[in-house]
Amino acid sequence: MATRIFESEKPKLKDPLFIEGLPGIGHVGRITAQFIVDELKAKKFAELLSSHFMHYVLLQQSSSVHVLKNEFYYAKGKGRGQRDLIILVGDSQSIDPEGHYEISHEILDYIKKFGVKEMITLGGLGIGEVKEKPKVIGAVSDEGLDKKYKNYGITFDAGNKVGTIIGASGLLLGLGKVYGMKGICLLGETSGYPILPDPRAAEAVLKVLMKMLNIKLNMGKLDEKVKEMEEFIKKIEEMQRKAIGQMMQQQVPPTGKEGKEELSYIG
Amino acid sequence: MATRIFESEKPKLKDPLFIEGLPGIGHVGRITAQFIVDELKAKKFAELLSSHFMHYVLLQQSSSVHVLKNEFYYAKGKGRGQRDLIILVGDSQSIDPEGHYEISHEILDYIKKFGVKEMITLGGLGIGEVKEKPKVIGAVSDEGLDKKYKNYGITFDAGNKVGTIIGASGLLLGLGKVYGMKGICLLGETSGYPILPDPRAAEAVLKVLMKMLNIKLNMGKLDEKVKEMEEFIKKIEEMQRKAIGQMMQQQVPPTGKEGKEELSYIG
Amino acid sequence: MATRIFESEKPKLKDPLFIEGLPGIGHVGRITAQFIVDELKAKKFAELLSSHFMHYVLLQQSSSVHVLKNEFYYAKGKGRGQRDLIILVGDSQSIDPEGHYEISHEILDYIKKFGVKEMITLGGLGIGEVKEKPKVIGAVSDEGLDKKYKNYGITFDAGNKVGTIIGASGLLLGLGKVYGMKGICLLGETSGYPILPDPRAAEAVLKVLMKMLNIKLNMGKLDEKVKEMEEFIKKIEEMQRKAIGQMMQQQVPPTGKEGKEELSYIG
Amino acid sequence: MATRIFESEKPKLKDPLFIEGLPGIGHVGRITAQFIVDELKAKKFAELLSSHFMHYVLLQQSSSVHVLKNEFYYAKGKGRGQRDLIILVGDSQSIDPEGHYEISHEILDYIKKFGVKEMITLGGLGIGEVKEKPKVIGAVSDEGLDKKYKNYGITFDAGNKVGTIIGASGLLLGLGKVYGMKGICLLGETSGYPILPDPRAAEAVLKVLMKMLNIKLNMGKLDEKVKEMEEFIKKIEEMQRKAIGQMMQQQVPPTGKEGKEELSYIG
Repeated sequence: MATRIFESEKPKLKDPLFIEGLPGIGHVGRITAQFIVDELKAKKFAELLSSHFMHYVLLQQSSSVHVLKNEFYYAKGKGRGQRDLIILVGDSQSIDPEGHYEISHEILDYIKKFGVKEMITLGGLGIGEVKEKPKVIGAVSDEGLDKKYKNYGITFDAGNKVGTIIGASGLLLGLGKVYGMKGICLLGETSGYPILPDPRAAEAVLKVLMKMLNIKLNMGKLDEKVKEMEEFIKKIEEMQRKAIGQMMQQQVPPTGKEGKEELSYIG
Repeated sequence: MATRIFESEKPKLKDPLFIEGLPGIGHVGRITAQFIVDELKAKKFAELLSSHFMHYVLLQQSSSVHVLKNEFYYAKGKGRGQRDLIILVGDSQSIDPEGHYEISHEILDYIKKFGVKEMITLGGLGIGEVKEKPKVIGAVSDEGLDKKYKNYGITFDAGNKVGTIIGASGLLLGLGKVYGMKGICLLGETSGYPILPDPRAAEAVLKVLMKMLNIKLNMGKLDEKVKEMEEFIKKIEEMQRKAIGQMMQQQVPPTGKEGKEELSYIG
Repeated sequence: MATRIFESEKPKLKDPLFIEGLPGIGHVGRITAQFIVDELKAKKFAELLSSHFMHYVLLQQSSSVHVLKNEFYYAKGKGRGQRDLIILVGDSQSIDPEGHYEISHEILDYIKKFGVKEMITLGGLGIGEVKEKPKVIGAVSDEGLDKKYKNYGITFDAGNKVGTIIGASGLLLGLGKVYGMKGICLLGETSGYPILPDPRAAEAVLKVLMKMLNIKLNMGKLDEKVKEMEEFIKKIEEMQRKAIGQMMQQQVPPTGKEGKEELSYIG
Repeated sequence: MATRIFESEKPKLKDPLFIEGLPGIGHVGRITAQFIVDELKAKKFAELLSSHFMHYVLLQQSSSVHVLKNEFYYAKGKGRGQRDLIILVGDSQSIDPEGHYEISHEILDYIKKFGVKEMITLGGLGIGEVKEKPKVIGAVSDEGLDKKYKNYGITFDAGNKVGTIIGASGLLLGLGKVYGMKGICLLGETSGYPILPDPRAAEAVLKVLMKMLNIKLNMGKLDEKVKEMEEFIKKIEEMQRKAIGQMMQQQVPPTGKEGKEELSYIG
């Protein structure tokens, strides 16, 4: 099947802004996007499944299963200066390089149908130390576009500090040009240990985002939300490690014992 | 070719229930499903071949070759409260994550044509110890669906004990929702050593299944059947290990000896 | 592109017999098939290219390049009891499991157009020792088919000795059933060191084949031919090892040195 | 998406000669081709994106992102004996064998539309030592074609020294035959350390190329250009190593710690 999007509703949106927050370092993008979805009571309208996710389902407390997926939500702009939003969240990114491209193209093809022309992708920037006040580093799709975003407290020195943006946050921005989309990637500085979701980095990114989107969210709930997510994220990561360990065990032949058997190979 | 289903007969079935039992831990699913096929004298009507199986054929005692495959059988419900069944058995699952998705979607696409709306997938749950009376753990496709299956002696605490269901048993259940199918995965507790088929765990699952399907099978034959299968399963697993070992040997360059040769690489 | 067949001529053949001999253990299949092509002056009519071969070209003595390929030859039956033949030779098999299936299906799809209903695939059987008089082991596509081939000096005890036939020789035979083809795989006993082409095993297979095809070939030329091929085969294998070594070197990051650099990963 | 070419202009060209220079050993091909593009003020008319490149974007000094790509340029022949040129440069080759074939076929399919019948591919030949006067080794698509190129100072003894040409330079030449194209690969002798771009080897290749193309370029600028590129190339290679390291870290499960947890695998 490769990668397929299943649509449950076709919302009518006006010049929607696309926001992406998928799992990654410090889960900064994911926490931030999920918080916006929850606080704006955004509505789910499509799901993306992919053969480039791990080949298992998660078991939930209710004994029901959960397939790994990405989810599209929308929220209508209500106040002055607020725009319609399409928000992408999810519990996995591709497990191989080729899938990253495939999934990014599927997403871009899909959101193009809603007339998306601008995007904000969210992620973390591992800096190897814990910072009291993490900065938010910006990377733009087109040279000179940093000027457009200069009034939101974003630091534009990514070129000096960072070499690459790995995965969806980078590819959506980079490949978006082909689909006539421009935008920015917001990277919250985080220590860089992938195990732990970093609410402080997410908070920094959220503050910038609230200004950009002209919305007010109750930041007090963030810690609470992060705790809720933490259990789930920890479970996925643990299971991913176990599953990969299991796969390797199954595939790698035990050496030594077999050594003395008679050779019987045909080719 | 990727994955293709070759149909030898197109049976007419009424609201059939789909049962899956492919190789996995303790071969619990496979033993159980194969036993039902044999005892109900179910009839084969289609075969699934896939480039995600190992690239060899098995040699049988008769000097004839056997391609790795999954097989679809059907059995008509005869007694009261018995339903038409489609049963999937086979000697392999995908050897890579992507193939697991591809094969699951092929299967779902195919059985959807017969009007399948409910499925029971079968597997083992490795618990690291040998139990006198293995339990049967249930996982359902949809929250709340455990209630439907509460009268069959299934334990619904999977969410506490297990994190994931790897491979076909999980993906068929999870992806089935997209195809309008609901169902349950039955997991028989087993020690977890993949080498040995576990007839006790299969027996526990069979007992639950007989209640669910409203059928009576001669359980006395189970041990005998398992012994017949054991030889075949052992052979496949041994060969899989050898084949992978051989592949690695061919692909990994010998180090050391080459070190002193003159470098002649072009790029 | 995956796998594509480029046809230079469309021969008219009557109920042709398909013979396959590609690289493998002891290069038994390849030597045998190439010898028949040369001695019968068979004519090339198609080439198969595949993205599942190594991604390099070979440099020949003449400073011209050679893409890895499989080649289809045909020879018309001339004498009594002789049949039209399609012979497949080549310098590579797939480097990954999936490609083995893809290439086998492409070949079967293609030869089906010529009305092929029977095939003989050729290979070596590694037995771990050098034998004065190597036997030829047979494996058939269908149970009972060994009787058809009983008068050619083939040993039919593969089921006891061998577990699997890896690669094209096995898959073509096994998947052939789907295309309405039957046949046999002839395996010449060889020591099992893949580096060295084994002319003795090839000779044993050739003797059987001559009886089956009702042809007489000048076996005296075999050693000479093998020496010609040896240089080429050695070169390919050496280069394959080097190429893989080079690939690994490029892809595996040097550890240690990088350890102290500041962490700058974005996700 | 696999591999796609995005065309920004459709130039009208007369019997264009195709020149390829992508990253590789010593970056000889890349430096040479890029220098010609710059000096001839060639115009970009198409870009190739591929899911077989690494799944990240590069961050540039301007805080804008750069997707890995190959680029098609054209230059019209102006003087006597000068031909129209299509020049392919880029910052990546495929990271897997299959992608090398796919990308090469996409390129050949595309340039065939412009009537390309001849190509020159450029690369380095690692010889393990630094040479005062590196030679330029030639490899041709067809036997005997070396005669056509004998007057340009190319050494035609590749068959003795080199076994394979890995990647685009070799595959384009080898697969080109299928598209009705002939040509030559020019390999500049270089020490073979992939980290360092080798301007001396590029200079040697450029001198041969200028004769072949009947153009004069200001070689004095070469060192300057190489210095400009060096920074960029170093950055890509460093990031590629880091990205791969990161990927491995994410995918390989930590061993040891998990050992004592209870086994809970389902299959």
